[in-house]
Amino acid sequence: MKLHTYFRSSAAFRVRIALNLKGVTAEQAFVHLRKGEQSAEPFADLNPHKLVPALEVDGRVLTQSLAIIEYLDETHPNPPLLPAHPLDRARVRGLALAVACDIHPLNNLRVLQHLKGGMGHFQAEVDSWYRHWITVGLTGLEAQLAREPETGRFCHGNTPTLADVALVPQLYNARRFGSDLSGYPTLLRIEEACLALPAFADAMPEQQPDAE
Amino acid sequence: MKLHTYFRSSAAFRVRIALNLKGVTAEQAFVHLRKGEQSAEPFADLNPHKLVPALEVDGRVLTQSLAIIEYLDETHPNPPLLPAHPLDRARVRGLALAVACDIHPLNNLRVLQHLKGGMGHFQAEVDSWYRHWITVGLTGLEAQLAREPETGRFCHGNTPTLADVALVPQLYNARRFGSDLSGYPTLLRIEEACLALPAFADAMPEQQPDAE
Repeated sequence: MKLHTYFRSSAAFRVRIALNLKGVTAEQAFVHLRKGEQSAEPFADLNPHKLVPALEVDGRVLTQSLAIIEYLDETHPNPPLLPAHPLDRARVRGLALAVACDIHPLNNLRVLQHLKGGMGHFQAEVDSWYRHWITVGLTGLEAQLAREPETGRFCHGNTPTLADVALVPQLYNARRFGSDLSGYPTLLRIEEACLALPAFADAMPEQQPDAE
Repeated sequence: MKLHTYFRSSAAFRVRIALNLKGVTAEQAFVHLRKGEQSAEPFADLNPHKLVPALEVDGRVLTQSLAIIEYLDETHPNPPLLPAHPLDRARVRGLALAVACDIHPLNNLRVLQHLKGGMGHFQAEVDSWYRHWITVGLTGLEAQLAREPETGRFCHGNTPTLADVALVPQLYNARRFGSDLSGYPTLLRIEEACLALPAFADAMPEQQPDAE
């Protein structure tokens, strides 16, 4: 199993956490996003979507972090990253997708680069765009997590799930761009619980071999 | 079961297709996105993320289209929307997420409105943004689907899956914004196979009670 990764990619960060939680070791191959290695051979041939992460396994190439993590959860069921009941599974997937579909894609590197290079925005305008979508997305997450009885020490109950795996890299990313996170006490409390676990702490960008 | 929906929402379109494929009937409640009903009471209280679709079921509110569809697939297993083998499931989820994470979120109504209203772009610039991300995303999908042996009459084999459920609304949306789709013959061939099925055709925006 070989994970194509970049230390700062939030999506690769999610997969690193999941691998750690499962106790699964994968060989790592580094794709330097700022140098554009994802758009050049050999990676662009491996994954025509030109995005990390990608996981090579059994002669196949799996793409999209949440699909990779569901694969890991199906093939290494313990500890489970999804609860047992379909309604609870939908809640956890919904929380993860709120990050993966409605926050992160608006704020990843290629989008910020396109706003600046392609559309001619100043850095301050790009930063404002970034913070706008962080605020919209985290406000919704905070409201949901603060009021629902299923929220526990983690996003769902008292063990980490796919929702926490998505949340922690997003908060890390938001902090790196200077977002004010003080309005999200529930998210911060859950993040603290996660980062107390080596599976999360060891997956942090600065802990990776390709960190700069 | 009550689906909160809007006829033109690509994400709600996905859920409508899935309900039709499963033969499940849901009561419908209409949330007029262009009038901003998603951000006002009562919907904003029902779903603090202020996005459609949302599915009320058994006293719970499920959000995020792909989480809702996985719930429907788990609770109504036939016909399955995911293949049996974990590697194939990952492929199908990866294709669906390529649409749901890397194309649609960049081009949905709230983002286009923010580019225009919030950031002061002309309509032509917004259109150019739209088409840029369509081109990037569909080029990756076409490359993957054209070369992988698992692609059949549909995105994966010869029965519709979650990947087709995501693809068809995205192509509908792209066409509505005037994108040139001639460079994606595999996607168009799969779309044609899908739209030959009543489950897809009946879920089209113009077939909905709230269509304008």
